[in-house]
Amino acid sequence: MKLSLPPQPILLPSPVLIIGTYDSNGKPNIMNAAWGGIASSKPPCISISLREATLTYHNIKKNKSFTVNIPSEKYLKEADFVGIVSGRDRDKFKDSRLTPEKSKLVNAPIVKEFPYTLECNLVNQIKIGSHTMFVGEIVGMVADNEVLNSNQFPDIEKVRPMLWGSFGSMAYYNIGIKIGESFSAGNELNCKK
Amino acid sequence: MKLSLPPQPILLPSPVLIIGTYDSNGKPNIMNAAWGGIASSKPPCISISLREATLTYHNIKKNKSFTVNIPSEKYLKEADFVGIVSGRDRDKFKDSRLTPEKSKLVNAPIVKEFPYTLECNLVNQIKIGSHTMFVGEIVGMVADNEVLNSNQFPDIEKVRPMLWGSFGSMAYYNIGIKIGESFSAGNELNCKK
Repeated sequence: MKLSLPPQPILLPSPVLIIGTYDSNGKPNIMNAAWGGIASSKPPCISISLREATLTYHNIKKNKSFTVNIPSEKYLKEADFVGIVSGRDRDKFKDSRLTPEKSKLVNAPIVKEFPYTLECNLVNQIKIGSHTMFVGEIVGMVADNEVLNSNQFPDIEKVRPMLWGSFGSMAYYNIGIKIGESFSAGNELNCKK
Repeated sequence: MKLSLPPQPILLPSPVLIIGTYDSNGKPNIMNAAWGGIASSKPPCISISLREATLTYHNIKKNKSFTVNIPSEKYLKEADFVGIVSGRDRDKFKDSRLTPEKSKLVNAPIVKEFPYTLECNLVNQIKIGSHTMFVGEIVGMVADNEVLNSNQFPDIEKVRPMLWGSFGSMAYYNIGIKIGESFSAGNELNCKK
């Protein structure tokens, strides 16, 4: 039976995006964001939505750059921690024992321990209700050699990213198994091709 | 070893979003989109990015409404199929044997067989390179009673959504197991709390 329910921002699965920025003193900071996704293919762009209350919001406004770092599941505690405390009060890199590295392309730090990172320059910002959507052009990607496939793309089975179960579970999950090929599995229904 | 790589729109995991719209003749259509994410909490908003070449792009421009339907993993073939063919040539609901239902709130169809659906009215559109980002306010949610938890939120373990492995795998995956609680697991590192 279908039920009509009040609107909720529940997307399943939601990603776990660790956003890297520098504050006004040049101190590197990271925060955990679930609101975001790819915004364009050419040029490649990604959007993230943040509240003005966050330090990261102000860091992006100032520096016009950010990184999106994808944690592997073994960094669950670290990823969650940087979503609990504020960089105004804490050195989140230090307290989580993660290592900031300089990006060669953008004015934002890379999380050394995480398998791969999208390096972004701000190209658009749109205020939408409680959040501001920051659209970043992905100008480069940094990845651990061992998570790449033969095409030099990050391989989900090697990255082992987490995902967030949103408000229905308030929990993180790992990925399961491959269940089908994209642009392929559906051809079975393509009787008129 | 970290490698510097060309920019790619690779977010892991990417969601599998089945976008429901009506065409100019009122025929219901669905397409598979991976570019999108939650854009705001209050009001709840979601963004999806589409190329102008798609029928769905024009349907949203006309009707100012769309649905985001989340398929469970058992609908892998159907979800993939509606990303392979165009609604200009085909009746994708009919060919995939899925059932369009009228939304009570927005001018866009709901996929009856899928566990839950976000009903959206267009509130913003931004051209970003190859894609246009459509921001929809989620004005309602429709869900199968059996996928809800006690708070009436869709439960990821009952929804069993798919995820897409992006260009590194060109494959769909299911979710694995719960690996930790959010806003909780990181407290172990919160030595100064």
